[in-house]
Amino acid sequence: MTAPPIRPAEPGDRAEIERLLSAAKEFRAEEVACALELFDESCAGGDGDEEYHVLCAEAEGGGIAGFACWGKTPLTRATADLYWIATDPARRRSGVGRRLLRQVEQALAERAIALLVAETSSLPSYAQARAFYEKEGFAEESRIRDFYAPGDDRVIYCKRI
Amino acid sequence: MTAPPIRPAEPGDRAEIERLLSAAKEFRAEEVACALELFDESCAGGDGDEEYHVLCAEAEGGGIAGFACWGKTPLTRATADLYWIATDPARRRSGVGRRLLRQVEQALAERAIALLVAETSSLPSYAQARAFYEKEGFAEESRIRDFYAPGDDRVIYCKRI
Repeated sequence: MTAPPIRPAEPGDRAEIERLLSAAKEFRAEEVACALELFDESCAGGDGDEEYHVLCAEAEGGGIAGFACWGKTPLTRATADLYWIATDPARRRSGVGRRLLRQVEQALAERAIALLVAETSSLPSYAQARAFYEKEGFAEESRIRDFYAPGDDRVIYCKRI
Repeated sequence: MTAPPIRPAEPGDRAEIERLLSAAKEFRAEEVACALELFDESCAGGDGDEEYHVLCAEAEGGGIAGFACWGKTPLTRATADLYWIATDPARRRSGVGRRLLRQVEQALAERAIALLVAETSSLPSYAQARAFYEKEGFAEESRIRDFYAPGDDRVIYCKRI
C-alpha cells in the first residue's frame, strides 16, 4: 500500500490545518493563531529569502494527516527554521511526521541548506515533540531557562544536514 | 551638562537611522534593510503583543546618536527581544548605548517583563557588541555553531531583570 502523497499546501487546506492544530491538545490558542498566520503568509507568497513553505500530508479518505512549515532563516547563509511540524493526534505513530520531515530535508538539500533548527518547549506536554526530534537526528544544542514562562524553557534542536 | 533626551522614534528619524547603521561598519546591507523594516513596522503601529518599540537618543547639535529596538517575544509570558541597539560610530564610548539600554529596561519593568534576550554573531567584527552586553549584565546562555554561516555562530545573550 502506498502512503497518500505529501504536497505543497493550498489555501483550501486552512480549515483542515486549524482542525488538526486544535485537536492536538498541546497547542494553546495563541500558538494556533501564530501557525495560521504563517500559513496565510505562505499562501500570500514571499519575496525570496523570507518565504514560508508549507507541506501537507494527505490523509487516506481525504483531509490532512499532518503538515510542516519551514523557511530559510533571514540573515543566514544556509540555515532554515522548522517553524511547525504537526500530525493529527488520531494518526500519530504512523510515520506521517517522519515522511513530512524527509520532504522538508529534500527541499533543504536542493537549496544547499546545511542546518535545520527547531525550537520547542521543555514542558511535559511537549515530550512527544522532543522525542520525535531526537529520534530524527536533531540534537539539543541550547536551552534558555524560563523563556516562554517560569518553568517553561526554550529548547533549541539542531539537525546538521 | 545634561545628556540629550532619549525619546520614542518618529517616522522622520528613518534617514538618520539608516545613516547610522551604514556608518557602523559591522552591519551588512541585508542587516541594515532588516533593521529599517522593523523601524517601518514600529511606525505603522502593532497589535499589542507584536509591537516593535524604537527609542532614539538625540545627538547634541541634532540628529541621532543611537537607537534601540525591542519587542515582546511572541508566545512568551514575560520575555522581550532586544532586536537592535546601535550607536553612531562617531559617538561610541560616550554612554549612549548604556542610556538606551536603561530606557529599554525601564519599559520592560513597567510591563513586568523578566527576561531580555539579545542575539549576536561570534565574528570578530561583533566583539564590541558582545563586550557591551557582558558589561551590561547579559550572560551568554547559548550558542549555535555555524548558524549565520560557516564559522559564524549565533550567540544568545540573556539578561534576567
